[in-house]
Amino acid sequence: MRAVFYAGNKKLTVGEAPQVAPGPGEVSIRVAYAGICGTDLHIYHGHMDARVTFPQIMGHEMSGVVEQVGEGVEVLRPGQKATVMPLHPCGECPACEIGHGHICHKLKFLGIETPGAFQSVWTVPAFAVLPLPDELGLDMAALIEPLAVACHDVRLGEVKAGEFVVVLGGGPIGAVIALVARENGARVLVSEINPHRLALLESLGFETVNPLERDVPELVNRLTDGTGADAVFEVTSSQAGAELMTKLPRTRGRIIVVGIFNKPAAVDLHRFFFRELRLLGARVFEREDFDRAIGLAASGKLPLSALVTDVLPLEKLEDGFRMMESGGNAMKILVRCGE
Amino acid sequence: MRAVFYAGNKKLTVGEAPQVAPGPGEVSIRVAYAGICGTDLHIYHGHMDARVTFPQIMGHEMSGVVEQVGEGVEVLRPGQKATVMPLHPCGECPACEIGHGHICHKLKFLGIETPGAFQSVWTVPAFAVLPLPDELGLDMAALIEPLAVACHDVRLGEVKAGEFVVVLGGGPIGAVIALVARENGARVLVSEINPHRLALLESLGFETVNPLERDVPELVNRLTDGTGADAVFEVTSSQAGAELMTKLPRTRGRIIVVGIFNKPAAVDLHRFFFRELRLLGARVFEREDFDRAIGLAASGKLPLSALVTDVLPLEKLEDGFRMMESGGNAMKILVRCGE
Ligand SMILES: [Zn+2]
Ligand SMILES: [Zn+2]
Ligand SMILES: [Zn+2]
Ligand SMILES: [Zn+2]
Repeated sequence: MRAVFYAGNKKLTVGEAPQVAPGPGEVSIRVAYAGICGTDLHIYHGHMDARVTFPQIMGHEMSGVVEQVGEGVEVLRPGQKATVMPLHPCGECPACEIGHGHICHKLKFLGIETPGAFQSVWTVPAFAVLPLPDELGLDMAALIEPLAVACHDVRLGEVKAGEFVVVLGGGPIGAVIALVARENGARVLVSEINPHRLALLESLGFETVNPLERDVPELVNRLTDGTGADAVFEVTSSQAGAELMTKLPRTRGRIIVVGIFNKPAAVDLHRFFFRELRLLGARVFEREDFDRAIGLAASGKLPLSALVTDVLPLEKLEDGFRMMESGGNAMKILVRCGE
Repeated sequence: MRAVFYAGNKKLTVGEAPQVAPGPGEVSIRVAYAGICGTDLHIYHGHMDARVTFPQIMGHEMSGVVEQVGEGVEVLRPGQKATVMPLHPCGECPACEIGHGHICHKLKFLGIETPGAFQSVWTVPAFAVLPLPDELGLDMAALIEPLAVACHDVRLGEVKAGEFVVVLGGGPIGAVIALVARENGARVLVSEINPHRLALLESLGFETVNPLERDVPELVNRLTDGTGADAVFEVTSSQAGAELMTKLPRTRGRIIVVGIFNKPAAVDLHRFFFRELRLLGARVFEREDFDRAIGLAASGKLPLSALVTDVLPLEKLEDGFRMMESGGNAMKILVRCGE
């Protein structure tokens, strides 16, 4: 079977990998589609070399069909459509103890700390495999993982019907947050600087703003009759976003930090005091978020296919990374893996 | 009657002020004691000249006896012990509309935007006057306002019995937060650099740490068996505090920003993401906090008298400001006003 290996220093090679039968408690899945995540791009850029094992097979957003189940696996059967919730918590740390294994202190992320989905057949622990409804297309099913991130962010952000929500950053994660927040009944404004992404978001019916061209606080103030936004999602991981995020919420409004900041940002803590703002960090997803994402994807209610800007064969994975780097019109790029 | 006037530029003068009968809906109170607040010190230093009207009578933490009631005031009677909840919300802004008048967008703070309590007789709107139980001494009653701040901070921070709480900054507000958190059943560690304050806090039975001498994250980690603090109160308004606050909480722990930062601080937003931390700003108090503070003060359960390091006659108010500036052993300084 085939796999794409990351050897460090922006080097990817396509090669043969031995197909190993699943061990006890494991399941092997023939991968249909795998999405390229911003995290994969980070790995490709060498920013996460400390967490991966060379040669690393990346990839954790996927869909496929169960090929073989190992000893003791009873609820999954070959031929079943499935996806993977790529978390392996330790079960013993303070986070696991209070029931939040998704932020386990020793979390293993499948596809980062373990081999990932950019190969024909992916073998994973059975507890991470979730069966999918038959009617769900495997292409859209590859979007379940990022959609689960959005479900988690929106759930922790307590977005309710009738609320005004601002999403700072309209990339793949910002876009699905906007979709889920709208599904919850919120009015959503997306702030984004890439004109291709702005056009795509507008075609999906979102109000948008380019913060390089317009005064976002003034706009939010006007759109909310001077009240401010109920919730603001920070998905840019930028100093500009960290500055903007405190200027938009209403009194007691919420800020949800989704972006992964690689250094401390200057934050207006006075505004938190003055307006009694709240901020919370949101990371990956919990099981209920994954379940909701599967349900949403299967319902066909969300225009997920519009987010897929390219579908490439596995051999062209590196082209996908370059398209993401270029900052052009790439939104979500899928790779066909398992033939 | 006497009053102390702030004329700008660190100038205070003691002088005569005309005693005016309360207008309709107003109440005049013979002030017994008034506490000097950090905010008064800020005004004295000229940092809030834009908000005050010269010559300004400062002071908003007080106790006294109702002297006269204006037309239409029915629930208060002369001779009654009373304190003032020094907030005058507009009643119409987005904050007032959702029931949070304490963070009214056009809030008038009595003693800042209006004349304050550093005078013999203070005339205020009747809605701001709260009667006190007869058994409560007027000296301790002057601590109700800062105690209400602490009740608000601890309530918003949702401090529960058995939790581990860290208070960064052991000044007058940090000390009452520690007392109220302990009253809620929490174990409290106070981080403070002033040796006089450390000794006072230790005499009250608190665990303390000097962050200049010890590694606070290491200590908190050890005291909580590697879990981290449930809640951290940031009361230092310093970059050092902003750095420390994200290093101490457990997974999904809370940070309550009480300190008033006068410029943006570098904040580790990655930690919010990684541990799904929560941060909230807390400002002044709401009516239920004031009610709890009155109840706590009247109960005699808290060692409030230990926090009063000096009681000065009104004429010596400026000495009180200098004692606070010196960073010596001053904690809460009261001024006798109304004789
Ligand atoms: Zn991902
Ligand atoms: Zn764990
Ligand atoms: Zn005060
Ligand atoms: Zn108002």
